[in-house]
Amino acid sequence: MPSDLPLAERRHSVAAALRARLPERVVLSDPEDTRPYECDGLAAYRQLPMIVTLPENEEQVVTILNVCRELGVRIVPRGAGTGLSGGAMPISDGVVVSTARLNRIVRMDPYARVAVVQPGVRNLAISEAAAPHGLYYAPDPSSQIACTIGGNVAENSGGVHCLKYGLTVHNVLRVRVATIEGDVVELGGEALDAPGLDLLSVFIGSEGMLGIVTEVTVKLVPKPAQARVIMASFDDVVTGANAVASVIAAGIIPAGLEMMDRTSSRMVEPFVHAGYDTDAAAILLCEADGTELEVEEEIGRMSAVLEDAGASAIAVSRSEAERLKFWSGRKNAFPAAGRISPDYYCMDGTIPRKNLAQVLRGIERMEQEFGLRCANVFHAGDGNLHPLILFDANKPDEFERAEAFGAAILALCVEVGGTITGEHGVGIEKIGSMCIQFTRAELDTFFAVKRAFDVSFLLNPDKAIPTLHRCAEFGRMHVSKGQLPFADLPRF
Amino acid sequence: MPSDLPLAERRHSVAAALRARLPERVVLSDPEDTRPYECDGLAAYRQLPMIVTLPENEEQVVTILNVCRELGVRIVPRGAGTGLSGGAMPISDGVVVSTARLNRIVRMDPYARVAVVQPGVRNLAISEAAAPHGLYYAPDPSSQIACTIGGNVAENSGGVHCLKYGLTVHNVLRVRVATIEGDVVELGGEALDAPGLDLLSVFIGSEGMLGIVTEVTVKLVPKPAQARVIMASFDDVVTGANAVASVIAAGIIPAGLEMMDRTSSRMVEPFVHAGYDTDAAAILLCEADGTELEVEEEIGRMSAVLEDAGASAIAVSRSEAERLKFWSGRKNAFPAAGRISPDYYCMDGTIPRKNLAQVLRGIERMEQEFGLRCANVFHAGDGNLHPLILFDANKPDEFERAEAFGAAILALCVEVGGTITGEHGVGIEKIGSMCIQFTRAELDTFFAVKRAFDVSFLLNPDKAIPTLHRCAEFGRMHVSKGQLPFADLPRF
Repeated sequence: MPSDLPLAERRHSVAAALRARLPERVVLSDPEDTRPYECDGLAAYRQLPMIVTLPENEEQVVTILNVCRELGVRIVPRGAGTGLSGGAMPISDGVVVSTARLNRIVRMDPYARVAVVQPGVRNLAISEAAAPHGLYYAPDPSSQIACTIGGNVAENSGGVHCLKYGLTVHNVLRVRVATIEGDVVELGGEALDAPGLDLLSVFIGSEGMLGIVTEVTVKLVPKPAQARVIMASFDDVVTGANAVASVIAAGIIPAGLEMMDRTSSRMVEPFVHAGYDTDAAAILLCEADGTELEVEEEIGRMSAVLEDAGASAIAVSRSEAERLKFWSGRKNAFPAAGRISPDYYCMDGTIPRKNLAQVLRGIERMEQEFGLRCANVFHAGDGNLHPLILFDANKPDEFERAEAFGAAILALCVEVGGTITGEHGVGIEKIGSMCIQFTRAELDTFFAVKRAFDVSFLLNPDKAIPTLHRCAEFGRMHVSKGQLPFADLPRF
Repeated sequence: MPSDLPLAERRHSVAAALRARLPERVVLSDPEDTRPYECDGLAAYRQLPMIVTLPENEEQVVTILNVCRELGVRIVPRGAGTGLSGGAMPISDGVVVSTARLNRIVRMDPYARVAVVQPGVRNLAISEAAAPHGLYYAPDPSSQIACTIGGNVAENSGGVHCLKYGLTVHNVLRVRVATIEGDVVELGGEALDAPGLDLLSVFIGSEGMLGIVTEVTVKLVPKPAQARVIMASFDDVVTGANAVASVIAAGIIPAGLEMMDRTSSRMVEPFVHAGYDTDAAAILLCEADGTELEVEEEIGRMSAVLEDAGASAIAVSRSEAERLKFWSGRKNAFPAAGRISPDYYCMDGTIPRKNLAQVLRGIERMEQEFGLRCANVFHAGDGNLHPLILFDANKPDEFERAEAFGAAILALCVEVGGTITGEHGVGIEKIGSMCIQFTRAELDTFFAVKRAFDVSFLLNPDKAIPTLHRCAEFGRMHVSKGQLPFADLPRF
């Protein structure tokens, strides 16, 4: 189909081609119907899609892919739209494929400890369905009440427990994928290892660029008999950051190890009354889970390490209710930010734990430089930072300053040997920062693999991996490994 | 270079091209020098390589790749040659790239708990170097005294502790890879997650088909304060197999959970005096590790579960010496097989734990069918079987019967929802069985990814992934998912 047709005409003919092979209710083309799909959690960027499809089974997914491939129409897969990096942002002349109606739990096997679910099943719904068997699905993004397992697969989502239990990639055993060629392939399996190339891992976190997932087999883990959490206060952020390293260095892998600075705890406390020490420069939340004996021992060891590391106060949850209260503040940090600032920008960089203090000091300096406040609340145990940059989009250039602030934080993360994303993905938000993270040969390799799955670049194009042209425009040179990969491109 | 040149001439000119750019000692072309490289641990297959190279640094690896690419010469990467599936079997007109001289520990960082090593460093040497810091590298293949980390990466090796600590893919953070294009790329990183496609996981276990690893960053874990092992006896194999499932179902992840049948324990006991109950139809070894309290609690819980599951006797190691004695039998099962049978064939299939009993009974039946004995000694907790088929290659068609027996075991593994390899790779040994495991679309996807890294198929060609032609010759149809992928090929 010639792409220079006026949009309305193109919409009309693509919709007709889809409707010829799919039930009426599966294809939305009226802008009134497609408006709700114009953005995901990165709401600063909006684009009305040409068409939205809501397939109800795998066969319909394959049909949509076949029609789009035959017509050369680009596709944006979409889960619940809670993503924070714009991975599900539509294309003006593209088709959104929403997995919202693929929401069936196919099989729950408590004996083998696996659940087979469709991609539109919500993260929390899996744990709810597994609860009668004493099991749950471990990765727990803050959005777990809304986000879907298909979206989790696309972004390789984490959560507060992934220090101990791993990211999505560590908890998914198998995916069924509809490819742009209209094939259905299975990647991975229920066995510990699979022969052939590990395409499951490459698919997880591929941000909708390699295929559309139609079924996911997840690992379930036993609900620990008990969990308790320590809240430790620190008089300065550096001492708190170093305490994180001490806990890990002592050979303890807490079930959660989170840090909040004073800006964050003061932001959230009036809102949720979590009982936080708002005088402390930083607080750490360290959870132990397991049998009663295990928890008792680990809480004891962690308390000792935290005291040695200079904690000014230590409180341990005395009941499940108090444990949940301690966590409620952490889990509601983002909504709380919305109460004290008209807008906020949530970053997601990951750094080696040993550089926590250095990067936090760097962010402090940047607050001055960019004239914006930043609240730090993050997965300290993983070194996964979530600085919340507070701004007001209605004030002149605050949005631009917030973006520049965010990019500067990511550049610092890469500089100390970290990465530009921990769990939120690259999407459109961080595509420029990818040019700092990777060499040209590395980006080339990504594209080669992308091409192996999708030779015409129809699946979620222009997301996640920047072209060399884009990097040249971005004007960044990757130098962290002593190479200047774009040396043969014009300098800026 | 035209490939129809006589071999001697071709050897001469390729060696000359290599020697023009590399020190003399790096290139071996005399058959007397290259003979030791004619096979790996799958010694039934032998092939003298045209040339062997022994690069001493990354730059030399890149040079060898460049020369081979320019001349269109195929390459077989090789670690210590302990692999059991023929992944390092040479090609008559190809160049072997051995990593033997890339054996330097580059950096040991006990604070970040990582070691950076060259690919030729032996698996055990990493743990030895980390020991002064109270750390070790977890995956422990039986061959760990000899096998190298580069080979472990190529095969995604496991070991007796991988139920709790994971396979190579779970313990490697980053690899540096020299590609066939002569680029050096880094895959993965020290952070919990990396942006872009997860090419680290696809590289691990890719059996030398995607590039040559020049540096590996591994995770180190703290040496547990204590470890103890239970030896549980069972009157029949089925009860033992079901006990394995019971342990896991009780929410326990033992540090090791291994099973040996009577054939195995009687084979090994006279040789190592491990103290095994040779009257039992099967014994289980279940290890707990951690702090003293944790170990005590877990040993107690495991003993209770094993008793409930029908163990006829239970012994718990009372000292570190006794623990090592219990394990010594398991670790020496393969050499012991060599004492009672002129030859043995070690299989490596993985099945869902719930099918253990069914598959073991199936193997028993096959012993009659193929007229050969089989000793079963395996990673029961992972469902990773290692049936040892005992035969005498000097007797007419025993080798062929052993191969057919092995293929039948793998077919049974796939039938019950398992896979044809747990940790030994596909290599040349199981390339036929791949046709049963995967659909045509799945094999196509593997090839597309292979092509993304190596468009001319110069890197370890004809290993691991079968061509459709090969599957047609093999005469197998993949039907386990209700599809007949090769339906358009001639039937056999």
